[in-house]
Amino acid sequence: MSAKKSVGVGLMGLGTIGGGVFKALAERDKTIAEATGCPVVLRRVLEKRPVDIKPSLLTKDVHDIIADPEIDVVIELLGGEHPAVDFIKQALLAGKHVVTANKEVIAKHGAELLAIARDKGVALQFEASVGGGIPLLLPLQHGLLANEISTIYGIINGTTNYILTRMSQERTGFAEALKKAQELGYAEADPSNDVEGRDAAYKLAILASVGFHTVVRPDQVYCEGISRLAEPDFRYAKELGYEIKLLAIAKQTDGGVEARVHPVFIPEDFLLAKVSGVYNAVQVEGDLVGKLIFYGRGAGAQPTSSAVISDLIAIGQSIAAGKKVPSVMRQTRPKPVRPISELQTKYYLRMSIADRPGVLAQIAKILGDRSISIASVIQKEADVSRQTAMIVIMTHPAREEFMQKALEEMRGVPAVAEVCNLIRVEE
Amino acid sequence: MSAKKSVGVGLMGLGTIGGGVFKALAERDKTIAEATGCPVVLRRVLEKRPVDIKPSLLTKDVHDIIADPEIDVVIELLGGEHPAVDFIKQALLAGKHVVTANKEVIAKHGAELLAIARDKGVALQFEASVGGGIPLLLPLQHGLLANEISTIYGIINGTTNYILTRMSQERTGFAEALKKAQELGYAEADPSNDVEGRDAAYKLAILASVGFHTVVRPDQVYCEGISRLAEPDFRYAKELGYEIKLLAIAKQTDGGVEARVHPVFIPEDFLLAKVSGVYNAVQVEGDLVGKLIFYGRGAGAQPTSSAVISDLIAIGQSIAAGKKVPSVMRQTRPKPVRPISELQTKYYLRMSIADRPGVLAQIAKILGDRSISIASVIQKEADVSRQTAMIVIMTHPAREEFMQKALEEMRGVPAVAEVCNLIRVEE
Repeated sequence: MSAKKSVGVGLMGLGTIGGGVFKALAERDKTIAEATGCPVVLRRVLEKRPVDIKPSLLTKDVHDIIADPEIDVVIELLGGEHPAVDFIKQALLAGKHVVTANKEVIAKHGAELLAIARDKGVALQFEASVGGGIPLLLPLQHGLLANEISTIYGIINGTTNYILTRMSQERTGFAEALKKAQELGYAEADPSNDVEGRDAAYKLAILASVGFHTVVRPDQVYCEGISRLAEPDFRYAKELGYEIKLLAIAKQTDGGVEARVHPVFIPEDFLLAKVSGVYNAVQVEGDLVGKLIFYGRGAGAQPTSSAVISDLIAIGQSIAAGKKVPSVMRQTRPKPVRPISELQTKYYLRMSIADRPGVLAQIAKILGDRSISIASVIQKEADVSRQTAMIVIMTHPAREEFMQKALEEMRGVPAVAEVCNLIRVEE
Repeated sequence: MSAKKSVGVGLMGLGTIGGGVFKALAERDKTIAEATGCPVVLRRVLEKRPVDIKPSLLTKDVHDIIADPEIDVVIELLGGEHPAVDFIKQALLAGKHVVTANKEVIAKHGAELLAIARDKGVALQFEASVGGGIPLLLPLQHGLLANEISTIYGIINGTTNYILTRMSQERTGFAEALKKAQELGYAEADPSNDVEGRDAAYKLAILASVGFHTVVRPDQVYCEGISRLAEPDFRYAKELGYEIKLLAIAKQTDGGVEARVHPVFIPEDFLLAKVSGVYNAVQVEGDLVGKLIFYGRGAGAQPTSSAVISDLIAIGQSIAAGKKVPSVMRQTRPKPVRPISELQTKYYLRMSIADRPGVLAQIAKILGDRSISIASVIQKEADVSRQTAMIVIMTHPAREEFMQKALEEMRGVPAVAEVCNLIRVEE
């Protein structure tokens, strides 16, 4: 390949993120050119809605980008699975490098798209798909290659972390905290993608695939949202020395990969417990390096632009130098993903039971029958009118499938008014 | 350049870090080969002391490495300025890539060595020189290139952070905390390099040079150690809502670069305030990405090996693919480094004064005469036998040179028994 005098860019999507990248490309063209080694020129923008940019730049037809020989790199910021995945595929097949922030596409189709990129000798980069502007995939793909990564813990959804921070610090209920998040623009009108953990599951699938050099599909990630959490859970968590966070967890174990997103109790003195508001943080443990934490803003037009443009510069540097762009991702190690039923962990269990002698013994027996051993029981406030009491049980490590069976049996016990919540504990 | 079938390595130094790298190279040869794209073979080890490795590998003569055509990459882990800097220079001039963990050499001679590397078309990588295994230079050199970096705050010396953590949490004195650090192997027998802040100053010079694309020499870094800190400082810090940390601070300002290492008061709810023990953390602020924090173990054979071997793999990937290794560092922006006298900041001032009316007014006048405005004064315990009282003054932002002149004048006031400590405040 011979060196080029400029790098041509096609931008797909001019929404919030796309608009941010458009602005950053225009405003810092000198910095970008200096870092890249040659000018980086935006040649075409795909956007169907009316937007206020130079008409000659704008197109509604994706082929104006795919077929343009002057365009070396396509930046895909349409979001969502379709048509983004098809556009990315077409761009790669046309021999163009692709930078994307699309977590859904990469989580679902990353392996296939990376194979196409390798075949065509082009790059597919997606730093912005996880953790906004925080460099996460860069260290996993480069700076930590000497390590076997054992564990990834992520607070990788700002919406839910904002809601949980409010619930923890101000003891507001879930609905109220969600409403506040929506007012501030931190949550969408339909918040289910964030609140149910699916957004975090996409990101975890990407982190685990990159970190463990394998393929973890999003449908293999166990996923549980935060909408069941209630004020008493936060109160008891604090009493017991914990904070509640929605964690995305991936571990390499002898039996395969664990990949799960759900609320957890984590000790309040862990640094991750202190990550509040819309901030993101990812803790990675490697066998040489030990525990690392990467912290920053996980969303927003500017942080996301930071990652997109850095990916663009990396590709541009190779183009400018006339070199082949290195393929960064090794997915050479097929590994089974373990079902959640095989999980071994400690649990926090909150339930409302009839306030009379013998009920606790009944519950203890149900747990004991399944080898679930109780670490502590706290009997909390009684509801005199309903003649019930709240109890909180902390267990020793137990197997998830046994715990779920125990819960099922408990729900059939007349003296159990309600199994309010079961939360896993990470220590 | 044509692709090679293996990458040959020469290792200089088999001390703690060198031994760790030696072990890691041997134990994880398969992982390294897979990541690199070809086998990475250790061909020669330079070590003058007796060591227990295969005699054919060992040499006491550096020329056995420099002149060996089979050696592509030299890993320098001798430490200290000499002869390391000469050996690195010789290796670069002989057309060999160099990986080093040597902060002193890179801080003092980085610009010259990088120029030689560029001339010879080889790489000089030094991720391990700052923050042990934490990927710091990688994000600054690649993942954050779209940003203008405005501020770097680093807890980058584990020894002093361990001592300060003990002094803060257990209210031990400096001498006792240092002794404990030495017992645990966290501090050397002669701890002055760490305790006086010089180690942190080397690392800050590297971070600032890389982050700001300029050259900051270690002798331009203002440097003040932790040995003056005493128990009352920690007590008052806590009372006022602060933690005391030895921070390495670099800022880009209109008038040039600020680069300084000294104890600071930082608000106790800052994440950096919660970094305890021997851990390191670096906070970087970019104009697009906002605040990022990188956290992990900043020293030790294993974390340092992680960074050294990742640098080696990055170079090896290019060698294996027959490509030129990209030059990563732009030092294209000469910037003046501002003297500490120009600093504008808030101050904590603790002094012992005669316990009688009028003295505080005298002190307030000295400050006021130099436009230093007082935010709060707390008069603390009186020493009845000496007829003195302790006062703590928090100021509004003031100019360092005026503050130093005020201190000078105060020391001449008979009613001032002692100016105990002046600590800068970062908020």
